[in-house]
Amino acid sequence: MKASDKGRAIVAHSGGPTPVINASLAGVIQEAAKHAEITSLYGAQFGIDGVLNENFIDLSRQSEEVIEAVSRTTASALGSSRREMKHVDLDRVLDVFAARDVRYFFYTGGNGSMGTAHQIQIAAQERGHDLHVIGIPKTIDNDLLGTDHSPGYASTARFFAHAVCDIGADNRSLPGQVEIIEMLGRNTGWLAAATSLARTHADDAPHLIYFPEQRLSLDRLLMDVERVYRRLNRCVVAVCEGQLNENNEPFGADTRAGSRGSLAMNLAHRLALLIAENLKIRARSEKPGLLGRASSAYISQIDWEEARMCGHAAVQAALGNESGKMVAIVRAQGEPYASTQGLIELAKVAYLEKPFPAEWRNPEGNDVLPAFREYILPLVGSVTAAARLEPMPVSTSRQ
Amino acid sequence: MKASDKGRAIVAHSGGPTPVINASLAGVIQEAAKHAEITSLYGAQFGIDGVLNENFIDLSRQSEEVIEAVSRTTASALGSSRREMKHVDLDRVLDVFAARDVRYFFYTGGNGSMGTAHQIQIAAQERGHDLHVIGIPKTIDNDLLGTDHSPGYASTARFFAHAVCDIGADNRSLPGQVEIIEMLGRNTGWLAAATSLARTHADDAPHLIYFPEQRLSLDRLLMDVERVYRRLNRCVVAVCEGQLNENNEPFGADTRAGSRGSLAMNLAHRLALLIAENLKIRARSEKPGLLGRASSAYISQIDWEEARMCGHAAVQAALGNESGKMVAIVRAQGEPYASTQGLIELAKVAYLEKPFPAEWRNPEGNDVLPAFREYILPLVGSVTAAARLEPMPVSTSRQ
Repeated sequence: MKASDKGRAIVAHSGGPTPVINASLAGVIQEAAKHAEITSLYGAQFGIDGVLNENFIDLSRQSEEVIEAVSRTTASALGSSRREMKHVDLDRVLDVFAARDVRYFFYTGGNGSMGTAHQIQIAAQERGHDLHVIGIPKTIDNDLLGTDHSPGYASTARFFAHAVCDIGADNRSLPGQVEIIEMLGRNTGWLAAATSLARTHADDAPHLIYFPEQRLSLDRLLMDVERVYRRLNRCVVAVCEGQLNENNEPFGADTRAGSRGSLAMNLAHRLALLIAENLKIRARSEKPGLLGRASSAYISQIDWEEARMCGHAAVQAALGNESGKMVAIVRAQGEPYASTQGLIELAKVAYLEKPFPAEWRNPEGNDVLPAFREYILPLVGSVTAAARLEPMPVSTSRQ
Repeated sequence: MKASDKGRAIVAHSGGPTPVINASLAGVIQEAAKHAEITSLYGAQFGIDGVLNENFIDLSRQSEEVIEAVSRTTASALGSSRREMKHVDLDRVLDVFAARDVRYFFYTGGNGSMGTAHQIQIAAQERGHDLHVIGIPKTIDNDLLGTDHSPGYASTARFFAHAVCDIGADNRSLPGQVEIIEMLGRNTGWLAAATSLARTHADDAPHLIYFPEQRLSLDRLLMDVERVYRRLNRCVVAVCEGQLNENNEPFGADTRAGSRGSLAMNLAHRLALLIAENLKIRARSEKPGLLGRASSAYISQIDWEEARMCGHAAVQAALGNESGKMVAIVRAQGEPYASTQGLIELAKVAYLEKPFPAEWRNPEGNDVLPAFREYILPLVGSVTAAARLEPMPVSTSRQ
């Protein structure tokens, strides 16, 4: 350790919160407290905006009770931001870092944020500012490359798997209806795929899973739904908010330019209308939306622990003289499930997207294949099926 | 007890399931098993349809383990139905009851179902069929008269209170946005009102609660939202799916005749669009929909126990020679919360609706008043707020 490595550290959050982003924050706080090289730890409030506005919260003086409570809480305790970095912002960030003697920067986010972290690291190098930049992976979408999976995914997957299980039981008890459940996920089907964990019995929901990696034609959807409905008198469909039709267009007409599209997203409702109109089957939609990433009841313990370990690993890497890297989760071979933390260069993950693997989708593109279960089950855990009465029919002869 | 009172019993579910409808079922099964007058207990599969089609499941032979597991499971283990009774159905029901020697009929449902139960009771009397008809209250909407509250309400209220708490924390950590959360509830605001439990801090969500009992003008909504947003840079609105505008029309244009409207309901999405267009504020909507009544993670223990006791009380009432009545929950005076079961005539609850009391709404019609909390808190329990970091800002002077 060089004497000159002594300095402040800043941690910031970027993009949508996850159920376990605060666990990573707690990991950073607790690890930083162990090392004298980090003279104090600032939390940037509301993401990179907090750096630009010098809106910091002192994390070194938080009590252990507060850190522990925050670590178990969904949403971002620091606040986050969706701001995209411009060149002028980059200069401002480095000015603030220099003035505040910041030597360590931990940035928690997805692939876009890792791009920002990479820009900051390069700009610091160019300025000759000795800054250690480490990315902490965070995305419910699980679309980060270079890591077996991303903190936040398993807990959100757990929410949606339970949602589909519960709605499936409701649909089974009041049949004659198609249920469209809209998942989070713009470009990748990781969350929709995870709802396959909701199945225990052969007739359990979800009956159809679609993947944004593949376009979905209305004809295909109607054919699939009708087939399931004719067999079961019910049908539950898991579909991602970003699903496009065969013309690469969103289903429905509410898409507006200029927004990220979240306002305009009305996919499940549109699909329910199309099914009702075309198949003359009662259909409705549920859109749990941000509850998927915000629900505290469905935090996966593994996800929570790994998120926390990623925070620890980020600080350890920075103090080990690493920079320009993202912490990655490395899955150990064999059973039972175990993982360690590794590092991958920011340049190899920035702005890139990991699609749901084609080899884990069935040829029809409406379900997962069994190999996916081996990947997902240790992360999310199993879903307990709704208990059923014993099938003890009463004789139709009257006695 | 007359010797002639010996005979079969049938239990059936009606309308949408609740998180605790199976607890009432378990109560009926367990109480019926104690009494020799009930020679066997049939469960009608898929509501009154199961009676009409003689599609019964033998509940007397279910194992204690199965009953216990089912009692903790959401959705209806028997299956339910939304069929409305016609006169011809009524004759068929009584024919089946006569042929099967059914002397006890337990019907679990809301105010419409209590109307059906009442019809069946009157028709049986006219025929001289000695039938004991007892209604078991069940509605997430809490709109049944004659009972302090209805089984199913508290658990669904618990879901929505947590949903608003979690979304509120998300909105606080990534502000600059308005969140519209659509509750279940066509005509009454009981569920929307319950989201007030999500508040711990003065700035916590929900910031606005609307009641379908009062029409809501777009101008009023925009004024309210803008006021909150200017103050907090965020805003969470709780609104019921059945909210109408000042012209007694649903917001939005997707309403279709012929359906119950559930397909066409797209309220929250429409409100988010209207807010974005008129106020130029980013807005989005979440519609947890049926998850509110289906989620197993949010069952209220009090709700579960009361639902079960209502099942027991129904059987006891029938064996006590009562008929044409619904079990009611009677709240005991004083603290701590306690309740007993009473009876109310079906004629006094059938087809009637209990609105959210005007005296528990604020004059502006956008929030509850404190007296409501005393009513709801013992039923739902408190909601734990998202943990916050200590407000320890870092000096803006650079040191």
